[in-house]
Amino acid sequence: MKLLAIDPGIEKVGYSVFEKNFKKRPSYRYLTSGLIKTSRSNTLEIRLKKIYDDLKQLIDKHKPNLIVLEQLFYFKNAKTVISVAQAQGVIRLLAAQNNLSLKLLTPLAIKQIITGYGTADKKSVQKMLKLTLKEDIAIADDDQSDAIACGLAYCFLNESLVSG
Amino acid sequence: MKLLAIDPGIEKVGYSVFEKNFKKRPSYRYLTSGLIKTSRSNTLEIRLKKIYDDLKQLIDKHKPNLIVLEQLFYFKNAKTVISVAQAQGVIRLLAAQNNLSLKLLTPLAIKQIITGYGTADKKSVQKMLKLTLKEDIAIADDDQSDAIACGLAYCFLNESLVSG
Repeated sequence: MKLLAIDPGIEKVGYSVFEKNFKKRPSYRYLTSGLIKTSRSNTLEIRLKKIYDDLKQLIDKHKPNLIVLEQLFYFKNAKTVISVAQAQGVIRLLAAQNNLSLKLLTPLAIKQIITGYGTADKKSVQKMLKLTLKEDIAIADDDQSDAIACGLAYCFLNESLVSG
Repeated sequence: MKLLAIDPGIEKVGYSVFEKNFKKRPSYRYLTSGLIKTSRSNTLEIRLKKIYDDLKQLIDKHKPNLIVLEQLFYFKNAKTVISVAQAQGVIRLLAAQNNLSLKLLTPLAIKQIITGYGTADKKSVQKMLKLTLKEDIAIADDDQSDAIACGLAYCFLNESLVSG
């Protein structure tokens, strides 16, 4: 089972890909991660198309079974909420068009699962990601590490649900 | 020039199609309107795909040059704003994929242009639409008349900009 985790946005979309195999320990494997960037000089339409096209390429390349999306709260950033939700709409469309399940994780749940406390800052999350994954991942951006945290949190969550 | 006006939503998407021809009086022609409905029993992903597929069919059939979208304000309906914005994202993606321009009109501007006052109620708008279009349009739903008002308002706006 493969999952594509996405931290949605209109300027930057972070993503990560994990493989899950319950017969192995650890039961997950980090495959890749990265960042899709769109240009402010383009219209919102063109930027959404760039996000759609780049994510479609990732889906075609990695063939995930599942998309895990960081959930959006309107009270968190009321100013940008509409454009981020528009990006989410495009991602959810991709899920339906490619017959992928879609799961949502709140930022609070992700931090709680990764670091043990829901109010952890970005630095603590990134430190824990490097310790856990034991890989030297070049993290270019907070949105990329958010997507790695989202994917890893889902792997842990799923594992505990299965074993528990 | 043809325009497809859309009142976005996740449960119901109203649409209307107008043709513009500056050489004729009136310079616009009402072509059609309708409503796309999605089922609450489906996932948001499937509902967004239904909206995408149905609008794509309309674009292929009517070949508009332009999409006019009713603009969303987050303070208007904070509860539903995220899902409506997700539908907007899918519509904007369609605009980019089909090389259509996209214009936004606020509900206030639409009411102002159609009835002369920005706080007009739905009934006043619908009455004015029937008087103006001189057509016996079966309006099934407020979201359909909102889309007709949006398209007609854009025709008027454009006309006044050109003549002025």
